[in-house]
Formats: sequence, structure tokens, C-alpha cells
Amino acid sequence: MYIYELLIYLRIVKRTEDGVYVKGAKAHQTGCINSHWMVVMPTLRLSDKDKDYAIVGAIPVDAEGITYIYGRQSCDTRSMEPGEYDVGNKYFAGQEAMVIFDDVFIPNKYIFMNGEYEFASMLVERFTTYHRRSYVCKSGVGDVLIGAAATIAEYNGVEEASHIKDKLVEMNKLNETIYATGIASSLQGSSTKSGNFINDDLLANVCKQHVTKETYEIGRIAQDLAGGLVGSMPSGIDFNEGTMSEDLKKYLKGKKDINSEDRVKILRLIENMTLGRNAVAYLTESLHGAGSPQAQRVQIRRRVDIEEKKDFAKKLSGIIEREK
Amino acid sequence: MYIYELLIYLRIVKRTEDGVYVKGAKAHQTGCINSHWMVVMPTLRLSDKDKDYAIVGAIPVDAEGITYIYGRQSCDTRSMEPGEYDVGNKYFAGQEAMVIFDDVFIPNKYIFMNGEYEFASMLVERFTTYHRRSYVCKSGVGDVLIGAAATIAEYNGVEEASHIKDKLVEMNKLNETIYATGIASSLQGSSTKSGNFINDDLLANVCKQHVTKETYEIGRIAQDLAGGLVGSMPSGIDFNEGTMSEDLKKYLKGKKDINSEDRVKILRLIENMTLGRNAVAYLTESLHGAGSPQAQRVQIRRRVDIEEKKDFAKKLSGIIEREK
Amino acid sequence: MYIYELLIYLRIVKRTEDGVYVKGAKAHQTGCINSHWMVVMPTLRLSDKDKDYAIVGAIPVDAEGITYIYGRQSCDTRSMEPGEYDVGNKYFAGQEAMVIFDDVFIPNKYIFMNGEYEFASMLVERFTTYHRRSYVCKSGVGDVLIGAAATIAEYNGVEEASHIKDKLVEMNKLNETIYATGIASSLQGSSTKSGNFINDDLLANVCKQHVTKETYEIGRIAQDLAGGLVGSMPSGIDFNEGTMSEDLKKYLKGKKDINSEDRVKILRLIENMTLGRNAVAYLTESLHGAGSPQAQRVQIRRRVDIEEKKDFAKKLSGIIEREK
Amino acid sequence: MYIYELLIYLRIVKRTEDGVYVKGAKAHQTGCINSHWMVVMPTLRLSDKDKDYAIVGAIPVDAEGITYIYGRQSCDTRSMEPGEYDVGNKYFAGQEAMVIFDDVFIPNKYIFMNGEYEFASMLVERFTTYHRRSYVCKSGVGDVLIGAAATIAEYNGVEEASHIKDKLVEMNKLNETIYATGIASSLQGSSTKSGNFINDDLLANVCKQHVTKETYEIGRIAQDLAGGLVGSMPSGIDFNEGTMSEDLKKYLKGKKDINSEDRVKILRLIENMTLGRNAVAYLTESLHGAGSPQAQRVQIRRRVDIEEKKDFAKKLSGIIEREK
Repeated sequence: MYIYELLIYLRIVKRTEDGVYVKGAKAHQTGCINSHWMVVMPTLRLSDKDKDYAIVGAIPVDAEGITYIYGRQSCDTRSMEPGEYDVGNKYFAGQEAMVIFDDVFIPNKYIFMNGEYEFASMLVERFTTYHRRSYVCKSGVGDVLIGAAATIAEYNGVEEASHIKDKLVEMNKLNETIYATGIASSLQGSSTKSGNFINDDLLANVCKQHVTKETYEIGRIAQDLAGGLVGSMPSGIDFNEGTMSEDLKKYLKGKKDINSEDRVKILRLIENMTLGRNAVAYLTESLHGAGSPQAQRVQIRRRVDIEEKKDFAKKLSGIIEREK
Repeated sequence: MYIYELLIYLRIVKRTEDGVYVKGAKAHQTGCINSHWMVVMPTLRLSDKDKDYAIVGAIPVDAEGITYIYGRQSCDTRSMEPGEYDVGNKYFAGQEAMVIFDDVFIPNKYIFMNGEYEFASMLVERFTTYHRRSYVCKSGVGDVLIGAAATIAEYNGVEEASHIKDKLVEMNKLNETIYATGIASSLQGSSTKSGNFINDDLLANVCKQHVTKETYEIGRIAQDLAGGLVGSMPSGIDFNEGTMSEDLKKYLKGKKDINSEDRVKILRLIENMTLGRNAVAYLTESLHGAGSPQAQRVQIRRRVDIEEKKDFAKKLSGIIEREK
Repeated sequence: MYIYELLIYLRIVKRTEDGVYVKGAKAHQTGCINSHWMVVMPTLRLSDKDKDYAIVGAIPVDAEGITYIYGRQSCDTRSMEPGEYDVGNKYFAGQEAMVIFDDVFIPNKYIFMNGEYEFASMLVERFTTYHRRSYVCKSGVGDVLIGAAATIAEYNGVEEASHIKDKLVEMNKLNETIYATGIASSLQGSSTKSGNFINDDLLANVCKQHVTKETYEIGRIAQDLAGGLVGSMPSGIDFNEGTMSEDLKKYLKGKKDINSEDRVKILRLIENMTLGRNAVAYLTESLHGAGSPQAQRVQIRRRVDIEEKKDFAKKLSGIIEREK
Repeated sequence: MYIYELLIYLRIVKRTEDGVYVKGAKAHQTGCINSHWMVVMPTLRLSDKDKDYAIVGAIPVDAEGITYIYGRQSCDTRSMEPGEYDVGNKYFAGQEAMVIFDDVFIPNKYIFMNGEYEFASMLVERFTTYHRRSYVCKSGVGDVLIGAAATIAEYNGVEEASHIKDKLVEMNKLNETIYATGIASSLQGSSTKSGNFINDDLLANVCKQHVTKETYEIGRIAQDLAGGLVGSMPSGIDFNEGTMSEDLKKYLKGKKDINSEDRVKILRLIENMTLGRNAVAYLTESLHGAGSPQAQRVQIRRRVDIEEKKDFAKKLSGIIEREK
């Protein structure tokens, strides 16, 4: 089946002198609702039958004809509970949305591609090169989770146990690997003909590949350091207001000088980032954002100069003569 | 600080001719609320000052003086939403609770240990030997998640892609490793003096150690196969009842003959088991139940006959003479 | 190309009243030179054009027409050096050979398959089921390497360092995983129509899959515990006889009461098992013997009842109704 | 015991107006024999009793009083065999040596530290910062091994099999991770007071930590792609000169247009790099050079600003107030 027969991808449905009208849907638009503009673009290689799908343009998020379907995620309704005791992250959360375009107008001045289908795959590839490198941001989120794990280890009175220290080292090693592969991709950036800079494609994909895996292991270790309480602690209402509140505060104390309120708060943050509201961003979105894991592996394969490496091996093994 | 000074562990506070009264708390009691009886036992090595803590007894769950604090977990309130569209698992969930005992009576006939502190550590060790092997049950849960991943791969029309097939193999390899190490522990069971059988301690700990890690990797791969929609799909109300319902059903269709309702249902199950209500049981409880990961490593170290292995090496390397 | 056109696989080239004559080659025959008999069998699915390749028979290893090409392996000539200082394993080594059959006769009484090509793939599958489970033997070799690692840690005076203890636990966990998956495969064995027993195919393949990977990690950790000396120590002649012998014994001492001769011996054993003569058996042969890693993955895929697992998931997610 | 009592570390034993005389040993000196100069330095934190050990100086490799003990390594004697058929790498190999200094003179102009024991630990730390980052060189060796694996996959006719392609991607991902973390460490370099530049310590240790592990996995995958022949092929003499030479060339052919000589050559290179002469450099030296794995973990722990990360977590969880 051809793309143009599916009628679900975004496409031009009407052209006027002033611009174009588009129709279709975009799934998985991270953070679109708190943005000012959306830039739509094709996400696949296109053929000459797909000219109407070769549209890139900027659209204000409140343009006429757009409907946002707010994605439903783990623990989303907790944020709206009175008291906000169990929210985990007191300030921030993200969102995913599906966006449906019903004859949305893009004026000429905001159109950047219009029918040039032959550039669609290059555009996608360049976009993912930038985008996959930008996943270095997850190492910042990782810093928070590492900090939370170190804090609960301290509250539990075990931060000097050798296996705890080693697990914190492991978390950092994984997190810095994401960071380092990301910035290395920029270090090896090169300028395009137009004078813009683009980062290294191979290393951007290596970075994103780590993001799809190490975040989960960091999350697992965070739960390990948290202790079982992260899965069994009482609700904030029971803990703070209920008739058992005093008992709970007594029984849930950790180390001597740590109050149980703080212990519960840091545990809720770890829950939030590994099972709850922000786990979708730290884990699931790390997996699929900017392309699912296999997409990076395909690109790593394309970008590696395997023939050069074969030549190295053939020379050293004596299969081909080395130049003098 | 001594245990007997803490006043938080369960202990005997009064003895009568008919039995004992106990006070204290038990955290993390998986499934206690849907049980008929609780058996309480010490969980630490005890000294002669801890005689009052050396209590093992059976208590009906509705005995006077017991309070249950129901643990608050990811997505718990979803089950109570009208429509139950987003519940994921239509039938089952578990629960953790904290149990507070306020002068709870245990009659003599239900007391199995009373002050014999010197057997406390042996009791704990035998209990964990049985208990850690019993975590083979998580391979049954793993079967469900593997089935869900295979189903969504089919619905997405990619079940014949080689990387998808390989990921399903990996999930199964990990899951069967949990299963096989568990049953191997039983195979090597031995009888105690009393005629009871006890399974192999070393292999029980190896089994549990895999449970603390491979479940998370199985969960990660399940999310990989699910695709990004697992983190961005609309709420059941939007999908089934709202004004955009028709559009959503159109845009969220997978493979030709699969209806989008089924696709959403299987995705909600994967969400449930990796981020939501049952993720606590499949992941967090796998990590900490029957002892956190380091507890198994300590026990593996104790149970391995390292001196025998050293002798093997010393003989083969010629450090010590082999017997003829 | 068809097998029958290749003329390299073993095949019947002449039939007489008393038996058959075979020609061709068998590569990678582990231990054939120290065996009494060889049993040859097809290793591929065969078609009706391959009848001459469907031959199973027993042949004495010194039968006329057989030539063995002894495989050349890492450090093979060391065993023949005077002094045998650097041999590592004082008693044992293995060998691989290629066997070339030039009109070798198999009498009728030793022929077990003769042209029944349709059973060739079943035969291969049953053989690998037995054979892959038998790789549990590598956990015995692993015991030696773990013992060697524990010994050198002791000699280096670091056996109580927490990271050393943890690495020994990891080695044991990996080694016992190989062991446990192997014996679990036997535990689930079943009887064939003939009354023979055959072990579980799925678990046999899971066992072998671990053998292809965990042995390498055990080897890596052994080298870690060995310290750099495993890659830099002097030859046995320099150490024991040369003019620098006294200096070397002084400078290469480990812990106080350990003599440097023993330290060098255990290091040579670790070298032997991870880089040298027995590394081929412990590592390379673990990888490829009884089928290379991908062969097990294909078989795991075939043996898992994925449809049953899909049904579990469809029932729990509400896609299909559960039976009452 | 104090260092100064051991008399094995290098130390000053006599001071004259023109310089100092040193005595002691240095183990594991990679490549010292093909160098022009050695720079000796302390390798431990020193106390005020260790002033004589606080010596840094440059020494020509052929200075009077130096003895080199050439380390004995896997397959070292193969290079000296006639024909060099089985050498694997036709041109290169490395060496480790132990160096014994017996009253070796260092003139004043080549002395860079002389008794300033309080700077010893800073010196060691800076040295390892540079040195661990320099292990990025192993990604160059990795390129050769990846090339060899890709070449044998081609010769075996399986380079288009999906699992082969995926394994090559994995090798590259691991190899590029070493590369990227290394160059990222340089990117974040900073200038010292003297105007020299020093690379980032944390990322240098992350780089080296990957080198200690990923090289082994790359080696394992290379052996996987090689096939069993890498452990069982005949000696070069049998293959090239012996009476069975013709048969062997026939039976060991891979893909149609590939001659068996080339196949054997590339397999010998893989053997050389994973089990033989260069495996010591690619594997063992990657593990222990510039400090064994645990040394990097200690340094990662020191260099991470864990208090900053704890603060992030405490702010987001509401334990401490965020600044406005």
C-alpha cells in the first residue's frame, strides 16, 4: 500500500495563492501543548506519488482546525488530587499529545518544503541527526534520579555500604556515557554548504542508542537503592492527615536525624521517575523519541565505513599488500 | 543501637497463660489483605537481649488490634474510574500494605517460636531459601508480558521483522532463565531431619537474583515492541466516547484486519505491567521481595564452596599435588 | 547450490553387500583423537536428492582411509617446551581436528541410518537437544577458573576487598546459571516412544545460549582479579633458571606468606584458560560447539508456545473473554 | 607495612652532586623496549617517610644498570616459526616487560621530582587522567577487529544475514562508545595554571571503564562471526605445504569466489587478536593498563558532584525550597 492511499499522514488537501491547507494526524507530539509553534514535516522517504505529503511548515499551536488529544499516562490524575502529597515531582511534568489537523492553513511565508519529495529522506535523516544527539538532555534527568538515589541511601543510613557506593558509580558511569557520546557528536560536527553546522550522525545515533537502554538500568538501580518502601508506602493522606499518621511517621523513620516526611518525599520522586508521571518521559520517551531503537541501529550500520575497516584487517592479515 | 531499643519491630509485650500479646509493625506485606492468616516471624539475627522479638505465630487477618495501611501505588485510582477503559489488566491487581499490631493476641496453639532467639537466623535463612525459589512465579507473569509484546508486534504488522523476532527470543531466554534456575533449586532439594524437604539454597538465590534484573529488561523490551503509542495514547473516554472518538479509531488502527480497540487494550496492558498498577508487582516487588538484590549476593557467597574450587585450581596448576 | 553438488560433506560413494564406503570431511571434531569410535551423522536438513548424505554409522577412529588434521591452537607448542614451566594446566588439554574420509568402510552392523533423508532434520534436532544440555560441563571448567581467581585474589592479599568479593559472586552467579539451566532441562525430560528419555529442548537451548556468553564474562573477571601480571610475567626459564631468577622471585612476591612460584603458577593457569591452550575449549568451543549462538536462538523461537502466551495477554487485557 | 620497608618500589639509594642513583623494579612496562626514553614516577600516595620514593626522572632505555625481563605471552614463539603462516598479524605485535633498576643514574637535568612526596598523589591522578583518556586508541584496534569480523562474514557468505548485520552494529556501537567518551574528555579539557591543558578526569575514567569491558565483548562477537574454524583450523604447514594441503584447500573454501588461503589468513588474525599474541594488548592490557577497573570506579566516585545531584532531587521533591 502506498502512503498516499492511507489518508492518515499529514498532507496538502488544498492549495491557494496564499498558502496550503493540510489534513491528517501527528501522533506522539511531546510537549506540543506548552509550545508556541509547531513545525510539521514528513517522517518517511517519499516517492513522486507522495508530493502532497512533502510539506514542511510552521503553524501556531492555536491555529484553526487543530485538535489536541492529550495522552493519558501513568499517574496523571494524581497531580489533580488535593494536597498533592503523592505527586513526587513538585513542579514539573511533561505531556504527549496526538494532533489532528482538519484543513489547517499554512501561509506561504511559513512553508519550507512544498512538494520537493526527493528531499524528504535527507530531511528526515538530518532531523534525526540533530534530534538524537539532543537526547543528551536525558543525562540531566539522570542527574536528578542519581541524586534521589543517593539521598534515599543517606536517609536509609546505608550510603557508606560498598555495594551502595558501587551502584551509584554504575549509575553515573551510564549517565555520563549518554552525556559524553552526545557532546562528542557535536565536537565532530561539520558545516554544510549553507554554512549551518550539523553534528556527527554516527555518534548521535550511538548516543540515542544508549539513551534507549541505560535510562532503564539507571531507573532499576534507583529502585534498588530506594528499598521496598518505594512500592509499599502509604498514601500522603494516611501519612499526613489520617488517624494513623503518628504511627506511620514513627515506623517509617530512617536514619536517626532524618524525618520520615523527607524520606517519603524522596521515595515519591523515585516512584514518579520510574513508575509514575515522569517515568513516561525518562523511560518510554527515551526509548521511542526521535526514533525507536532499531532506527538507530540501521543508521549506525549506514554510517560506519565498514569497507575501510575490512581493508585494515586485510592488510594486517596479509590478504592484501600494504603500501610502502 | 540494639533492636530491643528501637520499639518498631514486632515483639511480645505481655505474656499470659493462654498466649502472648504482640506490638510493632510489619512493612511491605504483599497480598496480606486478601489472605486468611498471617504468620509473623523475626527477620533478623537476634541476640539474648532480643528474646521478646523471637516470636513466630499465626494470626487471623481480622484479629483485634491490627490496622492495615494500604500502600499507595502507581495508577491505583484508575481501577475505580467509571468505564475502566484504561485499567490495562481487566481482572487482577495486587496490593502491598503496612501492618500495625497494637497488643494483638496469639493463643498458645498458634505459637511456633517463643523466645528461642538462637534459631532466628536459621529460620530467616530457611524462609528465604523457600521464598526466593518461589519467585519463579514471576516467569508466569513474564509469559503474559511476552504474550502482550508478541500481540502488539502482530497488531503493528511487524512480527516478521528479524529484530522483532530476536527481541522476543531474548525475552523468552531471560524468562526461561528465571524459570529454570527456580526448578533446578527444587530438583536439588534435600530432606531435613524432620522429613520435610528444602530446596537448594544457592540456586534459590541465583534464581531470585535473576528475578531482580531480567524482569526489568523484559519490561524494557516489551515497551520497545509496543511502540511510542504506549506512552502517548488517548484516554479511554476520549477514545471510546468523546467527540474525537471516530477520528482516533481511524488514526490509531494498526495492521489491516486489527481493530484499533484491541490495539489500545493490549497497549494498556503493557503500560499496566511496566509503568502502572502491576508494574509494582512485576518490577519493584521482584527487586525487593524476599530480600533486596544484595541479600542474595551475600547468600550466594556463603553457599559457594570456594575452598573446593581453589583446590581444583591449585591441583591443575601444579601448586598442590594431585592424589593418584 | 545443492548439498549433493558440493562434494565436501560426508556421503556414501559405494555400496556393497557388507556395508558402505564414505567420503568427505568433518570439521571441528572435538576430542576425536582421544576417542575409540566416531559416530558420523548428517548435520543438515536433507532432500530426496541427498540420500547418499543420509548416513549414520560408527567407525573406529583408526579405520583405514581416515586422516586427522590436528587443529593448531593458541599456545599449542608450549606443552612441548622443556621444563613445562609455562604450560598453565599441568595435566590436561583438549584438541580439535578435521577428519577427512577417503573411501572409509562402514559395515552393516554399524550403520544406523542409510538413506532415510526425511529423518535427518529430526535427528539433528534431537542430537542438539542432548548435546546443548551437555554443555553444562562448562560450569565444571568454570569452577576451576573461579577457584583460580579466588586463589590469586588471596595471593595478592585482596580477597577481603568488597569489589573482589562481589566479582567472585558474579562469577558464581553466571556459572551456576549455566549449571541450573542445564539440569532443569533434564528435570523436564520426557520419554520417547522407544522408551528412551530426552531432555527439554527449550531449556537445553537456553543453557547453551548462556554458555556462549557467560563463559567469556567469567574469563574477563578472572583476568581482572589476576592483575596485570597475567599479561606481563616472565617466562618460566627466566623465572626459575635464569640469572635474574632471584630478583624475579623477590619482586614478584604477593602476600607475605605466599611464595612467588605459586603466584606465577596460578597466573599461568588463568592465562591458559583465558588466552592460551584451554581458552579455545572454555571460550571458542563454548561459543560454537553444538551449534553457534544463532542456532540456539532459532530453536528457542521454535520451541516457545507464543500463541499460548498471546492468549494469556488477550484474556487479561479484555481482548478475548476469559472462560468462566 | 610501609612502602619504605618493602624495598621493591623504585627509590633513590644514593645522591651525588650530579644526580641520583635509583634501585627497584617497575612491572608491566608496555612497549618499553621499543622506546628511546623511560620516565619513571611514583605510583602511590606517599608519606614523609617515603621521600626517597618521590622520584620522577627520564632515563635512556639503554642506561647502565637496567635489566629488562621480556614478558612471556600467548603465542609469542609463533612469530619465530619458519614460514610465519600462523602469525595472524603479519606486521605488528607489542610487548610487556619488567624493568629492574640496579643503581641507575639520573642526572639532575632529567630529574623532575626529587623528594616532594606531597605532590605524588596529585601527579598520579593527573597522569591517569591523561593516560586513561589515551585508551581511546583501543577503538582503533577495535576497527581492525570489526573489519576482520566483517571480512570473515563476507567470506563465509553470510554478511547479509540479519543477525550478522546486527552483531556488526553492536560491535560498532561498543567501539564508538569508547571513542566518543575519549574525545568528549578532551573536549571538556581545561587549562592548568602553567598553561598546559588537561582533559576531563571524570570522562577519562568513564572512557577507560568502557575499555575494560567492551573490548572483551567485541572480541567475543568477532569469534562468533568467525565460526568454529577459528578454533580448529590446521596449522599453516599442513595447510600450505603438507601432503593434505590440496584436500584442506578444497574443504576449507568459503563462499564461491573466495580462496581458502584468504579465509585462513583472516581467521588467524581474529585468533591473534582474541586468543593470541595481540589479545594480550587488546584484552588484558585494556583491562589493567592505566589502572585496573576498580581504580576507575573509585575515581568516578570522587569526581562526580553527588551533593549537587542530591540538591536537584531535594528541590524537585519538595524537601528543600527552590530559589525563586
